[in-house]
Amino acid sequence: MNIPSKLIQDAVTEFSKLPGIGKKTALRLVLHLLKQPEESAEQFGAAIVKMRKEIKYCKNCHNISDAEQCGICTNPARDKSLVCVVENIRDIMAIENTNQFRGTYHVLGGVISPLDGIGPEQLNISSLISRVEKKEVSEIIMAISPTMEGDTTIFYVSKQLAEKPVNITTIARGVAFGGELEYTDELTLARSIASRMPYENYLIRKK
Amino acid sequence: MNIPSKLIQDAVTEFSKLPGIGKKTALRLVLHLLKQPEESAEQFGAAIVKMRKEIKYCKNCHNISDAEQCGICTNPARDKSLVCVVENIRDIMAIENTNQFRGTYHVLGGVISPLDGIGPEQLNISSLISRVEKKEVSEIIMAISPTMEGDTTIFYVSKQLAEKPVNITTIARGVAFGGELEYTDELTLARSIASRMPYENYLIRKK
Repeated sequence: MNIPSKLIQDAVTEFSKLPGIGKKTALRLVLHLLKQPEESAEQFGAAIVKMRKEIKYCKNCHNISDAEQCGICTNPARDKSLVCVVENIRDIMAIENTNQFRGTYHVLGGVISPLDGIGPEQLNISSLISRVEKKEVSEIIMAISPTMEGDTTIFYVSKQLAEKPVNITTIARGVAFGGELEYTDELTLARSIASRMPYENYLIRKK
Repeated sequence: MNIPSKLIQDAVTEFSKLPGIGKKTALRLVLHLLKQPEESAEQFGAAIVKMRKEIKYCKNCHNISDAEQCGICTNPARDKSLVCVVENIRDIMAIENTNQFRGTYHVLGGVISPLDGIGPEQLNISSLISRVEKKEVSEIIMAISPTMEGDTTIFYVSKQLAEKPVNITTIARGVAFGGELEYTDELTLARSIASRMPYENYLIRKK
């Protein structure tokens, strides 16, 4: 595409670096910003720069936070002995939206993926181990995506914590509520039969 | 969605003001920027603010431009007597990409749409008329979307220019190359039969 202005070209290039945004969408967004009053564009740019510059990560669980510790870690109603280990902060938001979990979190920052150059040392695993070593934690729930990389990560973390006095659990895998057996993939279906549970438990959990 | 940081919340709000970007996509983009080095986010913000602040519009045709007149208006190889009237600069880019048009442009900045509060005075129509009055223009090609608002705009502009020594044409409407008759809407099909053309012309134009 032949863009007649270097300023627009630069802004389009920046937008198209974002995930899922191609050249055409980027141009549409830039032309939209161009139509807005100058203050709107300034506010947009400033919000992003400020966010990136001033954002803090909770020193305890690596969740994003405006203070040194996040609102979940400082909340006295939260059970500090129960830690849910997730890949990223979006997973925290998803779990928080269920309004069911009353423990705390630990953000790994990704999963082990040698192909992408992500090894255990790039993830927040050592800080998880030191949380366990402080003997504050009695159970760790691994809420990691059921992919090969996710399973590798769970395996690695469980190995690291094998000698420590902590229970390691994973979230249940199975056929989703509302999902139809017919359209469920073989692996999930096979696993959900293998890890079947007493009907009474089912009734309790569905409540 | 419960976002645990006001900084992130602000950035998400800004992103979700953009067309076609909802809360979830906005959050994904913000978290992506958060993972980038600080300079990237700064560069992103700066490119947008700079673009909005420093952009100029060609004083002749209202195309975007880094100088007082755009590259098309200042190009001596362009035919100044032929003016293609378009809604916005994206249309210029689309026509330029065909590499077929050697005239100049005039950007209206939209179409007449009373429902959206856009009347003729909000569009660059008076500057088009003064271009015609300078007797530089012999033909005006109306390359406006074939919607009701577009047709209204063409009608209004042609009325304004009725007394002036200028030919007004519109781009051809018809079945697109590669389009199937079966799936063409009735209006287009009916119009393309009404404005049929000699086969010899078809052969020339297809070359």
